Amino acid sequence: MSERNVRIVLASRPEGRPTVENFRREEVEVPAPAEGEVLVRNQWLSIDPYMRGRMMDIRTYAEPVALGEVMVGDTAGVVVESRHPDFAPGDAVAAYLGWQRFGVAVGGALRRVDPRIPLSVSLGVAGMPGVTAWVGLLDLCQPKAGETVVVTAASGGVGSVAGQLARITGCRVVGIAGGPDKCRHVKEVLGFDVCLDYRAEDFRQQLKQAVPQGIDCVFDNVGGSVLEALIGRINPFARVTLCGAMSEVDNPNPVGLRRLLPLIVNRVKVQGFIVGDHLERWPAAIADLSDHVAAGRIRYRETVSEGLEAAPQALLDLLAGRSLGKQLVRIS
Amino acid sequence: MSERNVRIVLASRPEGRPTVENFRREEVEVPAPAEGEVLVRNQWLSIDPYMRGRMMDIRTYAEPVALGEVMVGDTAGVVVESRHPDFAPGDAVAAYLGWQRFGVAVGGALRRVDPRIPLSVSLGVAGMPGVTAWVGLLDLCQPKAGETVVVTAASGGVGSVAGQLARITGCRVVGIAGGPDKCRHVKEVLGFDVCLDYRAEDFRQQLKQAVPQGIDCVFDNVGGSVLEALIGRINPFARVTLCGAMSEVDNPNPVGLRRLLPLIVNRVKVQGFIVGDHLERWPAAIADLSDHVAAGRIRYRETVSEGLEAAPQALLDLLAGRSLGKQLVRIS
Repeated sequence: MSERNVRIVLASRPEGRPTVENFRREEVEVPAPAEGEVLVRNQWLSIDPYMRGRMMDIRTYAEPVALGEVMVGDTAGVVVESRHPDFAPGDAVAAYLGWQRFGVAVGGALRRVDPRIPLSVSLGVAGMPGVTAWVGLLDLCQPKAGETVVVTAASGGVGSVAGQLARITGCRVVGIAGGPDKCRHVKEVLGFDVCLDYRAEDFRQQLKQAVPQGIDCVFDNVGGSVLEALIGRINPFARVTLCGAMSEVDNPNPVGLRRLLPLIVNRVKVQGFIVGDHLERWPAAIADLSDHVAAGRIRYRETVSEGLEAAPQALLDLLAGRSLGKQLVRIS
Repeated sequence: MSERNVRIVLASRPEGRPTVENFRREEVEVPAPAEGEVLVRNQWLSIDPYMRGRMMDIRTYAEPVALGEVMVGDTAGVVVESRHPDFAPGDAVAAYLGWQRFGVAVGGALRRVDPRIPLSVSLGVAGMPGVTAWVGLLDLCQPKAGETVVVTAASGGVGSVAGQLARITGCRVVGIAGGPDKCRHVKEVLGFDVCLDYRAEDFRQQLKQAVPQGIDCVFDNVGGSVLEALIGRINPFARVTLCGAMSEVDNPNPVGLRRLLPLIVNRVKVQGFIVGDHLERWPAAIADLSDHVAAGRIRYRETVSEGLEAAPQALLDLLAGRSLGKQLVRIS
């Protein structure tokens, strides 16, 4: 193949907030698939908050990206060459091939994309963010019809799906987001009952009015004073899924939960989770989410950055809260 | 009956820390049992941290004690008169008859005390504190042999049992207590592997050395900076049972958990609980705990205050951390 592979590698680790200088563009040979492997031309790259953590030289639940290595990330594309019996050139697949135009994967690491949904949706509602919402809300919070569910970062790739799943379950759904544009989208397009701007001066008063029956489930992506306000309205036997804590990232003095007594008095379960622990749930989740998208029950918005070279800035935009809906990069 | 009933009622609600002036002694008629009821002469009154909450005019999971009403509390005594077919004069029973010499209960509210154990133990290891430890540790933390369990307020009525149950399960058990006397008791009498004094200047360094394999279960009674230090050593998939948050009581500026990210990264479950929600587990728990006491596998210490009139000061001592083991009042 005469075409070259283009990739973005981690050039340096951030000190404080990351910048585009932490990344470097490279051109290399297109890799060749070995027996059992498949060569994929990536058309879409998913940009997700977890990538911030992988830039650090800290072992958490996953290894950091090594300096000089391709940044990790979910991708969707089309099979170019297959040495695996289950895949043929032209097949639409999702994989974890990172920030590059071409990638090679073993067949078992590829996921066929449901033909009823657009390829990019396999990275969003019917991909890792959607499965995160599905497991975190349905398996861990277990909301029941009539309960009140609050979702933070409600316009984001995960929160938007969590809230819509709660709505489909028959819950009262309150979203929390930053700014009037995001809130309008959450309410008018995604169909949440209410969306509150956490930056509003009277946020706590608005919250009180938005949850007249208290809060039974929280799907939280932010932590900090917003979560603390939610705990102040929590109901007995409530469930809190901790999916992210964006307010703590790059924050030397996070607020956290200053009082635990409300968790005891109300017998609250707080569960931190990582969707990668729940691989056995992915097939059911993706089938269910694909059904919802195909039937129009789950809606989504995508923020698309054009060209692989735009990926670093797309990540910075996401971390700064400038993305609306699922942040994607279209690989030319 | 010519004898009079003596009782301690709530005279006023505390402003700030409670004092003995919040209580009042009264003499009244001994109550007469109606059909299906039993009259009990209380010999022991249990003094427990939850009583602090009932003095406040705040509805939590239980109604507050009304002004002028008898303070609530678990009691153990002997049946004086029975109008219930299952009980006869002389039977040893535990009940919830409050701060008074005589009380009347419906038969269903009485619990027969295992003859192998002293009557007072039905208020401690084989009573509410013991069942709290049993449910909170075994049902909610589900420790496995070889895991590391940390118990705070380790010398108290609940913590001492939780730690011994963890030891019986085959865990490495680290207690946290206030001061060298309590720590010596926890280690030498109760058989914890280690006990740390949270007041020590190098507490965090001692903790690091005490849990070389990290922490799998926390049974917490205190919250605050001690719990925060434990979360700093928490293992993946750890369980934290929130039983109490003594550090937050009468504290206008509690520390709490300033960082939630460790809970996500390690997929920690934090569960607040109230033992009264688990009534179906009481019989199994009390039978199991009585076995352990009778066999000498669970040891206990009692701090006994003499006379009903000593109950208010006993509660203040308990809240100030001056009790060792189970705080009891012997009713003369």
